[in-house]
Amino acid sequence: MPQSPSSTIGFIGGTGPEGRGLAVRFAAAGHDVVIGSRDLARATEAADEVRSILAEVGDAADVRGALNADAAVASDIVFIAVPYAGMMASLEQLSSVLTGKICVNVIAPLSFAGGIPAAAPPDIGSAAEEAAQYAPGLRWVAGLHTLSARDLLKPTTSLDTDAIICGDDNDAKLTVSELLSEVPGLRPVDAGPLQSARYLEGATALLININKHYKTHASLTISGLNIE
Amino acid sequence: MPQSPSSTIGFIGGTGPEGRGLAVRFAAAGHDVVIGSRDLARATEAADEVRSILAEVGDAADVRGALNADAAVASDIVFIAVPYAGMMASLEQLSSVLTGKICVNVIAPLSFAGGIPAAAPPDIGSAAEEAAQYAPGLRWVAGLHTLSARDLLKPTTSLDTDAIICGDDNDAKLTVSELLSEVPGLRPVDAGPLQSARYLEGATALLININKHYKTHASLTISGLNIE
Repeated sequence: MPQSPSSTIGFIGGTGPEGRGLAVRFAAAGHDVVIGSRDLARATEAADEVRSILAEVGDAADVRGALNADAAVASDIVFIAVPYAGMMASLEQLSSVLTGKICVNVIAPLSFAGGIPAAAPPDIGSAAEEAAQYAPGLRWVAGLHTLSARDLLKPTTSLDTDAIICGDDNDAKLTVSELLSEVPGLRPVDAGPLQSARYLEGATALLININKHYKTHASLTISGLNIE
Repeated sequence: MPQSPSSTIGFIGGTGPEGRGLAVRFAAAGHDVVIGSRDLARATEAADEVRSILAEVGDAADVRGALNADAAVASDIVFIAVPYAGMMASLEQLSSVLTGKICVNVIAPLSFAGGIPAAAPPDIGSAAEEAAQYAPGLRWVAGLHTLSARDLLKPTTSLDTDAIICGDDNDAKLTVSELLSEVPGLRPVDAGPLQSARYLEGATALLININKHYKTHASLTISGLNIE
């Protein structure tokens, strides 16, 4: 089901580059955006930055900062973008208010032991599966791990890449796909069940290693798909 | 160090689609190719098929079948393409003759429990790391998991995708990169240490899920790289 232009998109822990980058893109597409944080001042600062990025290209976007709990209440679709270390605490606090809402988990647990960026998944296989096991009443989708935050933050840059998502709730995936397809140059790709988050979270570590080698900001594209 | 055109490329367990597909491409690039199997008749049959695919496009390629042990002895660069279940037995048999040779591990351990294609890595994290731990005297490279075997088998199809490889031996990676760059439309991408094989083996399961959803034969491309 496509979202109406007045959908409110929220971020739990949205002050980092990926949260702000997605906020730029969804606000540019005409959605109201609420950037959540545990710290209202940081949330407000991030929202100010997103508005000023969009003002530079002539967009008067509706973006505001809020405490995470307020962002969760206010939003129709919620992106969970806290660091992995804070994921379970955030869900403990917010799962009741998020119940029944579409929640997109963009978290990739990483370690940097010995200077090597590596995926550090929980035993169940992925942060996304761990979150869904803890809070099964949320309509979970996972993905977007492999987008370049730097490119997301530049509203005039066509992304020209894939937004790979997965999940067990097909209607939720479809809604998120519709939202993502409003972003210029972003092609939503459905990678199947939520379990596929294992490979997407792992691909984050892959890209960090590739970026380290080539000193660039690469992203992942699926070639050979029979879709636009 | 680029390989001379007379390099011999061998496959341990090369009768499957990926082994045959890579054999087509390396033979087309002018290399001698030895397809190994535990069963000489199957190896010979696979070699005949590769030669006949190339004959159709006017190439008189030097491709022969052999027992795995003979393929290992005869080859300068060896691709380990047995099913994961046979990997350790193959290494027990062949590691002494492979010592010092460049070995490219293309194995991705998979399970299909409950109808869901999933990565099934060993405890160490990847088949590639497990193999390297058992046989540290081989010059290990891992990768190519995400290529479409179907496309590899069509010598006139430009692949237009990335050959992502990883490994801890930079000279070995460079040699394999040079070999791969001889294949039209294939761009070698260095994903860092051998540990990155975890994500590449996982990406195999990701692609199988994507292929299942879109009923296609997709492969993985890295966008935003500052290389040709």
